[in-house]
Amino acid sequence: MTKQLKGIAASDGIATAKAYMLVQPDLSFNQSSIKDADAEVQRLHSALKQSTEELQLIRDKAAESLGEEEAQVFDAHMMILADPEFTGAIESKVKDDKINAEQALKDVSDTFISMFEAMTDNPYMQERAADIRDVSTRVLAHLLGRALPNPALIDSEVIVVAHDLTPSDTAQLNKKYVKAFVTDIGGRTAHSAIMARSLEIPAVVGTKSITEDVKDGQMLTVDGLTGDVTIDPTDDQVKASQKEAADYAAQKAEWATLKTAKSITADGKHFTIAANIGTPKDLDGVLANGAEAVGLYRSEFLYMDSAELPTEDDQFEAYKQVLETMSPKQVVVRTMDIGGDKHLPYLPLPEEQNPFLGYRAIRISLDRDDIFRTQLRALLRASAYGKLGIMFPMIATIAEFEAAKKIFEEEKAKLVADGVKIGDDIELGMMMEIPAAAVLADQFAKHVDFFSIGTNDLIGYTMAADRGNERVSYLYQPYNPSILRLVKHIIDAAHKEGKWAGMCGEAAGDPVMVPILLGMGLDEYSMSASSVLKVRSLMKKLSTEDMKKLADKAVNESESNDDNIKLVEEFTK
Amino acid sequence: MTKQLKGIAASDGIATAKAYMLVQPDLSFNQSSIKDADAEVQRLHSALKQSTEELQLIRDKAAESLGEEEAQVFDAHMMILADPEFTGAIESKVKDDKINAEQALKDVSDTFISMFEAMTDNPYMQERAADIRDVSTRVLAHLLGRALPNPALIDSEVIVVAHDLTPSDTAQLNKKYVKAFVTDIGGRTAHSAIMARSLEIPAVVGTKSITEDVKDGQMLTVDGLTGDVTIDPTDDQVKASQKEAADYAAQKAEWATLKTAKSITADGKHFTIAANIGTPKDLDGVLANGAEAVGLYRSEFLYMDSAELPTEDDQFEAYKQVLETMSPKQVVVRTMDIGGDKHLPYLPLPEEQNPFLGYRAIRISLDRDDIFRTQLRALLRASAYGKLGIMFPMIATIAEFEAAKKIFEEEKAKLVADGVKIGDDIELGMMMEIPAAAVLADQFAKHVDFFSIGTNDLIGYTMAADRGNERVSYLYQPYNPSILRLVKHIIDAAHKEGKWAGMCGEAAGDPVMVPILLGMGLDEYSMSASSVLKVRSLMKKLSTEDMKKLADKAVNESESNDDNIKLVEEFTK
Repeated sequence: MTKQLKGIAASDGIATAKAYMLVQPDLSFNQSSIKDADAEVQRLHSALKQSTEELQLIRDKAAESLGEEEAQVFDAHMMILADPEFTGAIESKVKDDKINAEQALKDVSDTFISMFEAMTDNPYMQERAADIRDVSTRVLAHLLGRALPNPALIDSEVIVVAHDLTPSDTAQLNKKYVKAFVTDIGGRTAHSAIMARSLEIPAVVGTKSITEDVKDGQMLTVDGLTGDVTIDPTDDQVKASQKEAADYAAQKAEWATLKTAKSITADGKHFTIAANIGTPKDLDGVLANGAEAVGLYRSEFLYMDSAELPTEDDQFEAYKQVLETMSPKQVVVRTMDIGGDKHLPYLPLPEEQNPFLGYRAIRISLDRDDIFRTQLRALLRASAYGKLGIMFPMIATIAEFEAAKKIFEEEKAKLVADGVKIGDDIELGMMMEIPAAAVLADQFAKHVDFFSIGTNDLIGYTMAADRGNERVSYLYQPYNPSILRLVKHIIDAAHKEGKWAGMCGEAAGDPVMVPILLGMGLDEYSMSASSVLKVRSLMKKLSTEDMKKLADKAVNESESNDDNIKLVEEFTK
Repeated sequence: MTKQLKGIAASDGIATAKAYMLVQPDLSFNQSSIKDADAEVQRLHSALKQSTEELQLIRDKAAESLGEEEAQVFDAHMMILADPEFTGAIESKVKDDKINAEQALKDVSDTFISMFEAMTDNPYMQERAADIRDVSTRVLAHLLGRALPNPALIDSEVIVVAHDLTPSDTAQLNKKYVKAFVTDIGGRTAHSAIMARSLEIPAVVGTKSITEDVKDGQMLTVDGLTGDVTIDPTDDQVKASQKEAADYAAQKAEWATLKTAKSITADGKHFTIAANIGTPKDLDGVLANGAEAVGLYRSEFLYMDSAELPTEDDQFEAYKQVLETMSPKQVVVRTMDIGGDKHLPYLPLPEEQNPFLGYRAIRISLDRDDIFRTQLRALLRASAYGKLGIMFPMIATIAEFEAAKKIFEEEKAKLVADGVKIGDDIELGMMMEIPAAAVLADQFAKHVDFFSIGTNDLIGYTMAADRGNERVSYLYQPYNPSILRLVKHIIDAAHKEGKWAGMCGEAAGDPVMVPILLGMGLDEYSMSASSVLKVRSLMKKLSTEDMKKLADKAVNESESNDDNIKLVEEFTK
């Protein structure tokens, strides 16, 4: 029977397909003693064989659809199943202790896992622990006769349904077949939502109950524009959604004509629409969508995707590739932004009661200037290959910015002395994401070349609300007049000193925020590549004069987030 | 040999006395098997007897110096030692398992503790778990021949030395004999420091190493004005410190003459100096120091000092007592401010990644309006007995303030309908401690009767730095121009709407902050009672005209916290 669910529209687009449940089955079991050890060993071998065959299949599919690199993890899994030390130990345990294969498997893999996990200074061994965990889950599922979800094996059009999607789940998804996804939890700024926009797959998140409401194989219609999810849609509903999808496709076609256009308002003013990237791979999307710059290169992915600190040369190669590809357009690289909820296996951080108010980003870089200097040297060397901007995350005081700048100047002087070629137009800026910096933006503007407003953290600190905490998510309000006042103050302060101001948070591509930002004169809008054309199209329809009136009202007269949503509707209808 | 240590001056005054180490001794031991079970049981009984005798002594001393109520916990401890179910189980374990008494004690008490702790919905039983833990520590110490610190037994003048002081440690201290205390960790705003000021005991905190540097009984000189600690001072040093102590006593004598004076600046302007309290007991200090109001009554202590939610009548009695005692002076009660680092045993809060950015204070009250309504009814009923102000903590949006006000109006209407007498001059205000509210203070000012600036949280959120996290404590800067700008904006916004603005954070009594706040025209300064006279004396020396110039410079020209410390020195020398 048809059922409607409402979630949060997280990534544009409309799709209809059958549900694919990316949900772990119940793998609970009890220990039992067995009489016929040989039969039990037989059952174990059969599960091991099925697991190996399944892994071989997944491995081939993954290599074909996602590439050799993504497929290698499954080679590691198969090697474990082929290792007599592992399988032999389980077999012996069944025979010696006369226990069921499930329990023997659990005992042996627990031993291996805790042994590997104890090697805390060896990230390679720690990864092996994760591999063993994955493999034993697979074997256990076969022993229990249950089917694990294998997203890499998807070979027909589906809509993925999950409680939440982790980065590693998403890495296995084949964009060709996955038409949309729907989750129980998360908001517009959750990892899964950001990923969906980056993959350009429609998504609805935060439905609360989709994994309970839908069964594997049921038909679903997902509207990533409105947040509506329909389970078992009627023929009419499917037709309506196809019509909507066609309209949306037409709109996308219009957007496509804007790929090589400049970003111009109705009254002929030009602003820069830039894109955010995490790795050089993301440049495809940047180029395909005609972004005018990279406004945020999240360099921490270089650190997070690595088993040890990336070397100066590793970093240099990555930065060089991005700068060369984008040249003569600017690339703004944010220096390492870890801490908070981002951790590196090889750089243990202290346990903190409130990590968001703790040791992170530039605070770590200034404390561990060995790591920071390596990054700055790599950036300086790469600067010869394009137009580089560098910005420091989480700056709270002018002293911090000056300390970071001093280290930059020192490394630059050393490289120049060594005869290394360095770009002569590097800009040095900072993220504006801490209220203290925003409030004092006029003083900061005398020290920097540019500001880039990071709305995610700025909103969180200003409202004193962790966006990941559902109990206070109602306070995470991007259009709250206090946020808008800080944003305006930052932009005005930059302009007064002849500097530019950008925004690289999610808000920069948000159709409610863009009209207000235009009215404030924000110079650069950096967003998911998939939003670039939509925002360019929106800008064409807006006049800066009108938007200035909107922005003034939003900042001076409004009392709430909702007041401002209404104001934007009024001014842009 | 004389040794100097530098810590953070946390509570004024100077003292010389011998060190009392409030430090747990090493109570580690190994399990061993015993041959002569009878001898071991004998050893156990001897330790039990020593423990009982010691507890009787402590109980009597505590009753005498601290009162019957504080002493009752020791009755509970003695009851455990007299309980054959507990001691018999240990004895049997020694005999049956042939293990040493230490191990038997540990096994039995662990069993009892986990049994009681498992009763998570019964706070009484959970307290029993804590009692058993305390008692077995005491018996274990006697078995091992080690001495536990027993602060309640202190009967000569000492300086307490500890790694940190918990509220329960401090409850046992007899102010008559404890002349000062010194700790390894903590800052001016740590609980131990606040407690020291409230007890008017000199204190130096954050020395890092005092517990390692000093031995029980060594002589110490502690200067709570400068943060200097001298171990084994020379005769000359003792003399110098006695001279300093005499000077300080003279100054205190001058301050004492100000007890009944109004708080007037050099140019004759009056401001209100108020005091912060946690319980009605604190009123003694408020009256003794001539505070002109209670600017912050932390009502959460009513909830924290209780085994279950305090009833409406319990709360009414406490509020009434404070209002009657202070009448006609105003008492501002802050509604329940729990969450963050403050928890109630009977109100489990969700585990949060960043509790300071989570479910706390008014966010809980609006969600759990049953608890909130009870508190408001108690306050409304008490309002007939004095001049009441009510303020809501952690307000971030106008919608929250309006929601809280609506609940207040509803309860008021019900009581009026029931014929209950209610004060006709209740003021309704809010804490200003979240940057979003500070930035939007002009809009908030239209809705409230007053603001009270909470600097502790305001600084933490504005700088994005948890004051309890040593790694980022350098960013917890009260005089940072961004903080001062927000404070000025709040004061100006209040005045523009004809409302008053106060401050109830630690900063309100800080001699660097007060001149700036006077210059900004802050109306009410609420602080530890022990700071009232010092600040009244300081105000007498300052002219608001000069301080206005200071404040303008601090807000408009300074770039850093240090700039502003220098500015204040310049303007007040």
